[in-house]
Amino acid sequence: MSRGIEVCLSGKTPQAPYRDEPASTAARSSNLLSLRVFRPLWIRLLKPSDITHLVATALQEDIGDGDVTAQLIDANACAQATIISREAAVICGCDFVDEVFRQLGTDIAVDWRVHDGDEVTPNTLLCTLGGNARTLLTGERTALNFLQTLAGTATLTRAYVNAIGAHKTRLLDTRKTLPGLRLAQKYAVACGGGMNHRIGLYDAFLIKENHIQAAGSIAGAVDAARRVSADLLLEVEVETFAQLDECLDCGVERVLLDNFSLDDLGTVVTRVDGRAALEASGNIDLETIHAVAQTGVDFISTGAITKHVRAVDLSMRFDDSL
Amino acid sequence: MSRGIEVCLSGKTPQAPYRDEPASTAARSSNLLSLRVFRPLWIRLLKPSDITHLVATALQEDIGDGDVTAQLIDANACAQATIISREAAVICGCDFVDEVFRQLGTDIAVDWRVHDGDEVTPNTLLCTLGGNARTLLTGERTALNFLQTLAGTATLTRAYVNAIGAHKTRLLDTRKTLPGLRLAQKYAVACGGGMNHRIGLYDAFLIKENHIQAAGSIAGAVDAARRVSADLLLEVEVETFAQLDECLDCGVERVLLDNFSLDDLGTVVTRVDGRAALEASGNIDLETIHAVAQTGVDFISTGAITKHVRAVDLSMRFDDSL
Repeated sequence: MSRGIEVCLSGKTPQAPYRDEPASTAARSSNLLSLRVFRPLWIRLLKPSDITHLVATALQEDIGDGDVTAQLIDANACAQATIISREAAVICGCDFVDEVFRQLGTDIAVDWRVHDGDEVTPNTLLCTLGGNARTLLTGERTALNFLQTLAGTATLTRAYVNAIGAHKTRLLDTRKTLPGLRLAQKYAVACGGGMNHRIGLYDAFLIKENHIQAAGSIAGAVDAARRVSADLLLEVEVETFAQLDECLDCGVERVLLDNFSLDDLGTVVTRVDGRAALEASGNIDLETIHAVAQTGVDFISTGAITKHVRAVDLSMRFDDSL
Repeated sequence: MSRGIEVCLSGKTPQAPYRDEPASTAARSSNLLSLRVFRPLWIRLLKPSDITHLVATALQEDIGDGDVTAQLIDANACAQATIISREAAVICGCDFVDEVFRQLGTDIAVDWRVHDGDEVTPNTLLCTLGGNARTLLTGERTALNFLQTLAGTATLTRAYVNAIGAHKTRLLDTRKTLPGLRLAQKYAVACGGGMNHRIGLYDAFLIKENHIQAAGSIAGAVDAARRVSADLLLEVEVETFAQLDECLDCGVERVLLDNFSLDDLGTVVTRVDGRAALEASGNIDLETIHAVAQTGVDFISTGAITKHVRAVDLSMRFDDSL
C-alpha cells in the first residue's frame, strides 16, 4: 500500500474519512472544527492483507486448475507489455495489479507511470510490464478487472466531487457497495476525492425512524446509543423540523436529511447554524448535486458512486516479442 | 439453488452455456446442430456453497464485530418487511437474500412473489419478510446489495438479448467481471437470457495472436491445444480471411471475429457457411448489436453486461409494527 499512502500524504486528492478518533468535546461543540481533527483513517482501511485476499479469490475464480491456452506458449518465453487507458479516468488499483503478478509467483516487473488518484487522458500509458510471457497472459484479465472496476468508482466519484465545485460540501459514500468489495470501493472513493462514511454497521450509529420508534423518542434513542458506545459517531435521520430540534437539543453530531427539498435544506442550514453537521441524501445525481451543495449542507451522500459501476476502458498490449 | 433450477427447467429465459460435454463429431461438423447437444451446465455452475461463501464474506465486511445501531431495538421484537423494486428489472439473487437471513441465525421467513429471471414493473413486490426485527435490520443492506447488483446484470443482459430480437444469434458474456463475483454474474447473465462463454482460463481454449505466433501457425497452435486437451472447446481469434481459412482447414469449432466491420462479418458468414460457429465481439453496444446479429453470426460477446453495473433501485420497507 505504499503507493496509496503516498497519494494520501501528498494531499493531492484523497480526503480523510469522517472519523478516526473521537472528536474532543470542544471540537464536537463546534461541528465544522471537529471535521478537522479526523486523521486519515482510510489509508489504513484497506490493508495489504485485504488486497492479498481479494486478489487470491479473483485469481482462483479465473484460473481454477490452470490456464490451458497459456500452455501453448514456451514456459521460458519472456515478454513486454503495457497497460493503456483508452479513455479519461481517475486511476485506482495499482497495488492490485502488482499483487496479481506477485501471486502468480514469477518475477514480473511492473513499472508504473501513474499513481492511484491520478487523472489520465485517453491513451495514457499506465504501466509497463516485463517477465515470463505465460504469467503475463494468465494475469492479464484479473489485473485489468481490478483496475477497470476500481478506477471506474474513482472516476465516477471525481465527477461528483467536480460537480460540487467550489462549495465546502464533502461527498460521502454509503454501504451500497458491490458484495465483497466494500473496502476496495471505499478506497476507490477516497482516490476519487470523496470521503468515506461509515464502513459498516459496526463503526457508527445511524439512527432511523425504526430505532426512534423503538426507543420512544430521539432523546431516548441517542441516550441508548451513548450507553452502547460513547465514542462512535452518532448520526440521526430526521423527517421533520421538530425532529431536527430534538437532535439539536440532545447534541447529535450529525443529522441526515433524506429527500428534503432544496428549499427545506436551505431552511435547515440556517436554523441549525453550525450546531450539527448536516448530511443530505436521496437520489442526488450529477445533475442535481451542485444545487444541493449550494444550500450549505456539510455532506452529501450517494449510493450511485459505488453501487453503479462504469468500468474504465483499459487495454493490455503485448510487444512483438511475444 | 432450487429456484434457479426451477427457472431453468421451465425453459423460460435462461439459456444453456456453450458447453457441458464434448459435442459429438457428427454434431461438430454441423455447427449449429452442435449447439443443441450442450446440456445446461450453468445450473450447476453457481453452487449453494458458492452462495454461502459470498454471503458470509459480504456479511462480515458489513457487520464486523456487530451492528451497533440494531442494539437500540428490543432483542425480542418482531417485524414484517417487504422488498420492492422501484423500477423495471429482471430479478436475480433470491437465493442470496435467503442465505443472508439464514446466516444471521434466526428464523426469518422470506416469502418470494417472484423468481430469478422474472421481469418486473416499477413498484413490484418482490418478497415479504418476517421475524426478528434486529436481524431484519442487520441483514437489509447486504441482502439488497446482492439483489440490486445481480438483478442489474440480469436486466442489462435482457436488454441486449431483446435488442438482438428475432435473430438466432446468442449473446455471450466474457471474463470481464467484478472481481470475486464471476460465477454469480455468469448466473445473472443466464437469468437475463444470455449464454455463458468460458467461465475462466481453465474450461476452454481461446487462441489469440500471441499463441499463434508462439506456435508458428494456426494449425500448429490448434494441434498443440488438442494435445493439451482434446475435449475442451477450442476457439481461435482471427484477424484476416487467410487466418479464417486456416481455421476451417484444421476443424476449429468456433472462430472469434474481433472488431470486424458489418460488411466483413457478412462476408465471413457466407464464406464459412456453417463449417464453424462464428462469434463477433469488439465494442458492440445496445445501439449496434441488432445490426451485428443481422449479419448471421452465431454469437455476440460483450464485456459490457458484466463489467458495467447499473444497480436496480430496490427498497426494503418495514411495517408500522417496527
